[in-house]
Amino acid sequence: MPRDRGMKEGTGLRAPTREGVLRAADKIAALLPPTPLIPFDIRGVTVWAKAECLQPVGAFKIRGAWHRLSDLGDEARARGVIGVSSGNHAQGVAWAARELGIAATIVMPSDAPAVKLDRTRALGADVVLYDRAREDRDAIALALVAERGATLVHAYGDPWVIEGQGSSGIELAAQMERWAGGPATRIVAPCGGGGLTAGLALACPDAEVLPVEPEGWDDVCRSLEAGSIERVGPEPPPTACDALQTPATWPINFAILRERCRSWARVSEAEVAAAQRFAFARLRLVVEPGGAAALAAVLAGKAPVDGRTAVMLTGGNVDAARFGDVVAGGD
Amino acid sequence: MPRDRGMKEGTGLRAPTREGVLRAADKIAALLPPTPLIPFDIRGVTVWAKAECLQPVGAFKIRGAWHRLSDLGDEARARGVIGVSSGNHAQGVAWAARELGIAATIVMPSDAPAVKLDRTRALGADVVLYDRAREDRDAIALALVAERGATLVHAYGDPWVIEGQGSSGIELAAQMERWAGGPATRIVAPCGGGGLTAGLALACPDAEVLPVEPEGWDDVCRSLEAGSIERVGPEPPPTACDALQTPATWPINFAILRERCRSWARVSEAEVAAAQRFAFARLRLVVEPGGAAALAAVLAGKAPVDGRTAVMLTGGNVDAARFGDVVAGGD
Repeated sequence: MPRDRGMKEGTGLRAPTREGVLRAADKIAALLPPTPLIPFDIRGVTVWAKAECLQPVGAFKIRGAWHRLSDLGDEARARGVIGVSSGNHAQGVAWAARELGIAATIVMPSDAPAVKLDRTRALGADVVLYDRAREDRDAIALALVAERGATLVHAYGDPWVIEGQGSSGIELAAQMERWAGGPATRIVAPCGGGGLTAGLALACPDAEVLPVEPEGWDDVCRSLEAGSIERVGPEPPPTACDALQTPATWPINFAILRERCRSWARVSEAEVAAAQRFAFARLRLVVEPGGAAALAAVLAGKAPVDGRTAVMLTGGNVDAARFGDVVAGGD
Repeated sequence: MPRDRGMKEGTGLRAPTREGVLRAADKIAALLPPTPLIPFDIRGVTVWAKAECLQPVGAFKIRGAWHRLSDLGDEARARGVIGVSSGNHAQGVAWAARELGIAATIVMPSDAPAVKLDRTRALGADVVLYDRAREDRDAIALALVAERGATLVHAYGDPWVIEGQGSSGIELAAQMERWAGGPATRIVAPCGGGGLTAGLALACPDAEVLPVEPEGWDDVCRSLEAGSIERVGPEPPPTACDALQTPATWPINFAILRERCRSWARVSEAEVAAAQRFAFARLRLVVEPGGAAALAAVLAGKAPVDGRTAVMLTGGNVDAARFGDVVAGGD
């Protein structure tokens, strides 16, 4: 198991704030159209899907990356940025860096989906591969940071990133008000390291935020149950949810989640595949496994629904052959 | 070949108008969120995809059906409606009828995709099947109309339907203004009988409207070339674009298209499949073959693009196994 040495220790990070989320939302609104809110019925109740898989890079990660990079000063921009990601944050950082003329280097696992590696490179980023089982990605990133004086843009343990991801909640609130007749009472969201869920909690202070993780990659569920940060078990099982394979959340995220999350869910690989098929057939959306985790919890009855429950569909970057097998697979 | 006996002769239909399109757009805006406009780059130019496949029934057809049915008086509503469709108009009519408490009967070809037959029935409509090769669907519909006094809601040859489909152009214009910096200069759209393209022409008087048909199902292309309505050839080839298999356009549509269309395109089955793969991989959208025809023309270089070209993605109802094969197929 890789360890999160070094970067995890307190680094004097400022706490993310709701004001920061609102500022991020303003910046994003000037740049990108809101992603659509798509209703569907399940067990006789209307549920509202926020289709973040329709962002330009196919994932909500563009939000945090844009908020972070656009706040950098000229000197920091000139030194470049370093990201660590299995692929969606990678593309978010690469996209924002390209738009702003900043050099980006992304540390990615060698077993990331080919489509994510290809697209990150296509956006002009320099990709450094590591072996997920044997190497410590954070150590590699830290070495690059030290060598170049570059800015690390962590995938979830960063106040700008948390605020940026939270901008999806500001959009959601306006859309729910217009179409669902009031704000979301509950937001069900896929959870890796807790960047999105922490951002949503800041964005929507009156909503329950319900994180969903794949079985075995349940560090946030374990941490919420223990009341302190816990890592995933010693030999986590394989999962199709590459985007959610984080060994542990960070204090900056957990401080928010511990205060705000009252329930959470773990979903099986079969439940995730069923959710991908549902999104294909009923919503006409391409959703990757990790992006379908929250929908999987809703469909499996592991997350309660009322008429104002929102479910985040967070990403849609999936290899074609794999996706073809899943949708044609049936139940 | 079936013939369009009877209904084709002049029936005193009023002409659709831009005022009607604007009224339809107001009615739709109160009911459904705008479908997203999603930019993508092709040959160095940004093109704007209007994702009508994300409508509740998975196709733009919900627009015309809603405009038509919601304008019916109490007496007409009590007598019910009859639709004729391979599946998307069927679902649009069934959806609007269910919302308004109107009985709907849909005449559908027995070779329609199973998913379209199933979903039309699931919306509560009564489905009457016919054999596409041997029976005349319009004759079947006319008999039902005569027998019940029901209102025929034609899939394209109806002023309300044309105006309703045109409401997508009103949404598009507002979105282009906001995100593309000005109105669409060109709208590339899949074309069956010409309901959508005629509606777009009314909605966007300053845009070029470019209809796209599958090779061999090119009655509108032939008609535009001839200057008068022409049918498809005597033995049109098989096509995956079931939604675009119309033998001939109607005078009410052609009167508008003849005035407004300066160019048009025919696309091959391979070009359509490539467009479905592009929509899957780059836009994360599930698009059915007929819904991808305009995108196919853009990708194949058969429709010119500038920075303000819009392309309509009109439907996303496709059988899972078929879609899996197409996306996994590669080029």
